Amino acid sequence: MPITLATNAYGKSRIRVVKVTRHASRHDLAELTVSVQFEGDFAAVHVAGDNRHVLPTDTMKNTVNALAKSWSGEQIEEFGRQLAGHFLHDNPQVSCARIEIAQSQWSRISPSAFTRGSEEKRTTRVSAARDAVEIESGVENLIVLKSAGSAFEGYKKDRYTTLKETSDRVFATAITANWTYRHPEVPFGPCWQQAREAILTTFIERDSPSVQHTAYAMGEAVLQAVPQISQVRLSLPNKHCLLIDLAPFGLENANEIFVPTDEPHGLIEVSLQRT
Amino acid sequence: MPITLATNAYGKSRIRVVKVTRHASRHDLAELTVSVQFEGDFAAVHVAGDNRHVLPTDTMKNTVNALAKSWSGEQIEEFGRQLAGHFLHDNPQVSCARIEIAQSQWSRISPSAFTRGSEEKRTTRVSAARDAVEIESGVENLIVLKSAGSAFEGYKKDRYTTLKETSDRVFATAITANWTYRHPEVPFGPCWQQAREAILTTFIERDSPSVQHTAYAMGEAVLQAVPQISQVRLSLPNKHCLLIDLAPFGLENANEIFVPTDEPHGLIEVSLQRT
Amino acid sequence: MPITLATNAYGKSRIRVVKVTRHASRHDLAELTVSVQFEGDFAAVHVAGDNRHVLPTDTMKNTVNALAKSWSGEQIEEFGRQLAGHFLHDNPQVSCARIEIAQSQWSRISPSAFTRGSEEKRTTRVSAARDAVEIESGVENLIVLKSAGSAFEGYKKDRYTTLKETSDRVFATAITANWTYRHPEVPFGPCWQQAREAILTTFIERDSPSVQHTAYAMGEAVLQAVPQISQVRLSLPNKHCLLIDLAPFGLENANEIFVPTDEPHGLIEVSLQRT
Amino acid sequence: MPITLATNAYGKSRIRVVKVTRHASRHDLAELTVSVQFEGDFAAVHVAGDNRHVLPTDTMKNTVNALAKSWSGEQIEEFGRQLAGHFLHDNPQVSCARIEIAQSQWSRISPSAFTRGSEEKRTTRVSAARDAVEIESGVENLIVLKSAGSAFEGYKKDRYTTLKETSDRVFATAITANWTYRHPEVPFGPCWQQAREAILTTFIERDSPSVQHTAYAMGEAVLQAVPQISQVRLSLPNKHCLLIDLAPFGLENANEIFVPTDEPHGLIEVSLQRT
Repeated sequence: MPITLATNAYGKSRIRVVKVTRHASRHDLAELTVSVQFEGDFAAVHVAGDNRHVLPTDTMKNTVNALAKSWSGEQIEEFGRQLAGHFLHDNPQVSCARIEIAQSQWSRISPSAFTRGSEEKRTTRVSAARDAVEIESGVENLIVLKSAGSAFEGYKKDRYTTLKETSDRVFATAITANWTYRHPEVPFGPCWQQAREAILTTFIERDSPSVQHTAYAMGEAVLQAVPQISQVRLSLPNKHCLLIDLAPFGLENANEIFVPTDEPHGLIEVSLQRT
Repeated sequence: MPITLATNAYGKSRIRVVKVTRHASRHDLAELTVSVQFEGDFAAVHVAGDNRHVLPTDTMKNTVNALAKSWSGEQIEEFGRQLAGHFLHDNPQVSCARIEIAQSQWSRISPSAFTRGSEEKRTTRVSAARDAVEIESGVENLIVLKSAGSAFEGYKKDRYTTLKETSDRVFATAITANWTYRHPEVPFGPCWQQAREAILTTFIERDSPSVQHTAYAMGEAVLQAVPQISQVRLSLPNKHCLLIDLAPFGLENANEIFVPTDEPHGLIEVSLQRT
Repeated sequence: MPITLATNAYGKSRIRVVKVTRHASRHDLAELTVSVQFEGDFAAVHVAGDNRHVLPTDTMKNTVNALAKSWSGEQIEEFGRQLAGHFLHDNPQVSCARIEIAQSQWSRISPSAFTRGSEEKRTTRVSAARDAVEIESGVENLIVLKSAGSAFEGYKKDRYTTLKETSDRVFATAITANWTYRHPEVPFGPCWQQAREAILTTFIERDSPSVQHTAYAMGEAVLQAVPQISQVRLSLPNKHCLLIDLAPFGLENANEIFVPTDEPHGLIEVSLQRT
Repeated sequence: MPITLATNAYGKSRIRVVKVTRHASRHDLAELTVSVQFEGDFAAVHVAGDNRHVLPTDTMKNTVNALAKSWSGEQIEEFGRQLAGHFLHDNPQVSCARIEIAQSQWSRISPSAFTRGSEEKRTTRVSAARDAVEIESGVENLIVLKSAGSAFEGYKKDRYTTLKETSDRVFATAITANWTYRHPEVPFGPCWQQAREAILTTFIERDSPSVQHTAYAMGEAVLQAVPQISQVRLSLPNKHCLLIDLAPFGLENANEIFVPTDEPHGLIEVSLQRT
């Protein structure tokens, strides 16, 4: 019995893109994960190995990045329609273009800072020996991003350094902080609220010349805000949002379109104490 | 050269517990993940296989469940201290008891309904063929729980049925909903907000005789609230919160202490359309 | 326009079961994750809240456990057919029963010990200060299970202890081991192989009165087998396989049918050194 | 009370690199995930925002890539020592450089094809209606890589295409395959073995002009090898291994050093049937 191709589809999944829309008084932020899938006349590529009808999935990714530039940043349905229309127009071999978009839910906490819904936890560790109890409390996975007031310049360079200095980058992180109480009976609820608030306020208000400096400033703010705390540790992954080069497509990217990445990531750890 | 035991520790990790505190006018909710770890005089168990000093990690779990009953449901640091104190008092062989607690961040949306911070997404799928465009939008991973107004009774029983009927259970789920727009140009933002709101309001306000009935009611509410929508699909995992039997410890469990479970889970799927 | 139920389905997902078949000369092992889904005449439950046709998903889980007892333990397709046939026979309201089964791939390493395909890693950590280099190498996520030669008896009991003593349990773990080399130039490849082999051989050959004793014996074996190693740390989660009570279904469970669980889990940590 | 910096560390985590060593008769493969962490004299960056001592974490990543070129590809401990030595030598401000490496366990299945330990599953889905039973079995998450015999050339280009054509790329995927049996009683075990074998043999032996062509060839091989199968579906993510540009460091990259990526990824789906 002969064998035939019954159905086929191909595309690119998990294309990630962040769009920052820079208004005079505030930034808007959209973080999307996009999938593109084509169905159509692709028998030759499957059966004969003839690639002439195959638009590379890498080109699909580039197209998402390029069209993100002209998208309003508002309704994901409109972005999906624009992408689908583009692909159908340029690719007569495609009978159906399917665009899936999932938008992360960022909430504004300042004109250019945001927090994202996450599995944030309030944490504690009680270490009880026979003669002493230590209580370390904290917050885990507090996800924030700021699109203004973050730079990274003046760093050490060697022959393996290719990173460009920047006075304006996107700074995204998932904050884990842990602080030790001076004694085991403090008003835990209010202390926790004040410490968390000190961290967030520092993130929003202080300009960041480096993740290290911001981490230190957060720790300092916690110790200043909550006298019951004797020391504090912070761990800040630098969840890089990389500026995408749109020049090959004749487009300028004025700090608007980024690819958020999970790996590799920077990791900054610091602890502060009263002396 | 002789070999010696340098350090040792043992315990139970990822003990999960939900406590519902039933006030007259509202419920409070605490969801915790607890770890217990002992250090101390355990050389004999390691070297000689003598278990007399080993409190089983299963007992640690039971103790977390039992003490959750008397805990106020407020500060996790106090629960940690109570646990550590209990273990040190009863176990002279333990030199250090370490309790770690992570508390999920539930927000109240009604006197007895809650939503949890999560990676919730707004989603869309645009399927564009040469002569038609279909837009299906939705919400993914909207996590909610209600501690009143949910029952499951009067179901079919066979010889493998051991489940007890209940007129009052905890109903927790992570809602995924997808709806199809009648045509590809509607006010996407307001429609999405109205559909999501209809789902949440149904969850809060309607009594639930089954997940199936609630899923159907949510779909009905979406179609009633948003005339631009022609059909809607819902997928509701039943993230079971099982009542813990505290009777072996001489305690009553009046629908207060539950273990939330990830697997197995129920899965209810339904689609509705206008006809 | 009236609203109607278009499609519906419900069931239980991620039902996990382990079956140990005890032959005279060896054990066979099957680990399954099963989903059950019903389609059929369920309009009344959705629309009217009438549950009379709903077989609870908890009963589906019980049925999987009960029928696992009579299944041969061989072809998952046959188990799927038995389950589907059972459900269709007893539930005239069901038009289609769908059973999905995923079987983990365990490989035999002894008559009653097994290892499972996993993302096992060979690891190292090189810590270089100005005047010293320390190299700690190891293995991560080496998944093993033994269905004979493991007991847990004679432990401490208190009023929260409900665990039954057992002279014959299933012992499953994911081994992480790390060992420090005496100096930074040793034959790393052969040392790694010998250390890993010592751990596996101990797991297979030594009877286990507790996870603690096995962890200690593994460390001792590493230090005895590889003279270049000065100390070794082991971390063994106790991935509990709980015996399922089949008595309510009139069946005996002679250490054959278990539910593997991810949480909570025991966690045993130990380090050994030469002195 | 004054506040002081107690401890600090920073670095890059989850740097991923694949090294293919091309011998005359065979290829060797090493896949690593590397972390680099510095401790030292970094008070000025934390307190004063002075970045002069900070080697960027991006440079750490570049250094891992560049030194992977000269590494033998054999012992990860030696690669860790080379990295640590390099960083200490060039960075007097660093007191301790810590390198962590985790190596995935690939097994050779041909001179230039490999399979990796994974949570591979054997799967089945039994769909039983009143008058018909359909059995679809398969394999899930079979992870393979070939470092020879894979090309991607002659594809369609548009203004968003930047991908370079290549006659020699790394092809890595996690195969999911599902096939339908003609009737519900076949020798399930042997059929499953033969189908899986046909897929693997095709991957190893057939040159790949595209993932699509390979997917089709796998399906064809399954249908040819197992007459009991009537149709087969394959889903192949293209887990891209991207060639790293080492030219900025004065090094040639002759298809040796790659970065494996999880997202975005290509996704190729195809089904074949007898006619």
